[in-house]
Amino acid sequence: MSQSFREQPRADDPRAVGELVAATGFFQDHEVAIAIELVEESLVRGLEAGYRYFFAEDDEGLLGYACYGEIPCTRGSWDLYWIAVHPRGQRRGLGRALLAATETAIAALAGRAIYIETSSQELYRPTQAFYLGAGYELAARFADFYALGDDKLVYRRALGTDQKAK
Amino acid sequence: MSQSFREQPRADDPRAVGELVAATGFFQDHEVAIAIELVEESLVRGLEAGYRYFFAEDDEGLLGYACYGEIPCTRGSWDLYWIAVHPRGQRRGLGRALLAATETAIAALAGRAIYIETSSQELYRPTQAFYLGAGYELAARFADFYALGDDKLVYRRALGTDQKAK
Repeated sequence: MSQSFREQPRADDPRAVGELVAATGFFQDHEVAIAIELVEESLVRGLEAGYRYFFAEDDEGLLGYACYGEIPCTRGSWDLYWIAVHPRGQRRGLGRALLAATETAIAALAGRAIYIETSSQELYRPTQAFYLGAGYELAARFADFYALGDDKLVYRRALGTDQKAK
Repeated sequence: MSQSFREQPRADDPRAVGELVAATGFFQDHEVAIAIELVEESLVRGLEAGYRYFFAEDDEGLLGYACYGEIPCTRGSWDLYWIAVHPRGQRRGLGRALLAATETAIAALAGRAIYIETSSQELYRPTQAFYLGAGYELAARFADFYALGDDKLVYRRALGTDQKAK
């Protein structure tokens, strides 16, 4: 049950991330393809690609990962692009641990706020509850954004001052 | 004073767009670079690049342009990425004409809503007034997004039903 976190992407990660993201059942095929592409781009271009990671793994392989980056044209606003935990790694607080590691890393890089986007659909209720439970606030809702009846929700957490206030 | 609209980008447009966008005084160097890159990408990849355009020009060259595209992973949500009018073409309603042409084109492509992002800074007051005057509503404000004291404003206009209601 020993698990460790790693930040550097490796050659096998695109395949492992694709498998992981697909296994969660939360993402459509074209979204899985994007998750894979980002890791591939990071393997080629390094930090220049704009993405940073935490990979959580045990002896059997990848259990979960987070992908984040500073939003282009901003100073201090970061986006959590991806966070996913494999079904076999769920219900052990791994998502929360990945999120906490990401927040700590962003704060250390002078990040002021973290943004996360998700869908309003029923399927994502646990995701929405996860962000709210982790101290994020709903900063915006764009009606019918993804499709009719499927809104975009934008969650936000300010780093620094907000944490002190808690 | 004759001016015409064109949709297909041409080999000289990256240079002309860079000059135009810089001449407005509204954009920083890295933003000018992005405007140029998008046109270059469209010249190489065509519609696959995800960007569409209206170029307004007269005998002296480019007077203004709009760059827009369907937002990835959505069905019917479009982004107006760029709209700019050269100082020598301003105060003739050209911005409004470019916006109207863009809205008509998006509606014809089954677009349901158009999003435009801008900064809350004083410099962009005329830009904000322009969108509000054209029927856009402020759909979201992200405090301190670009930098401390520099919020991101997201304007939105629904197509179809909203237009009928007016």
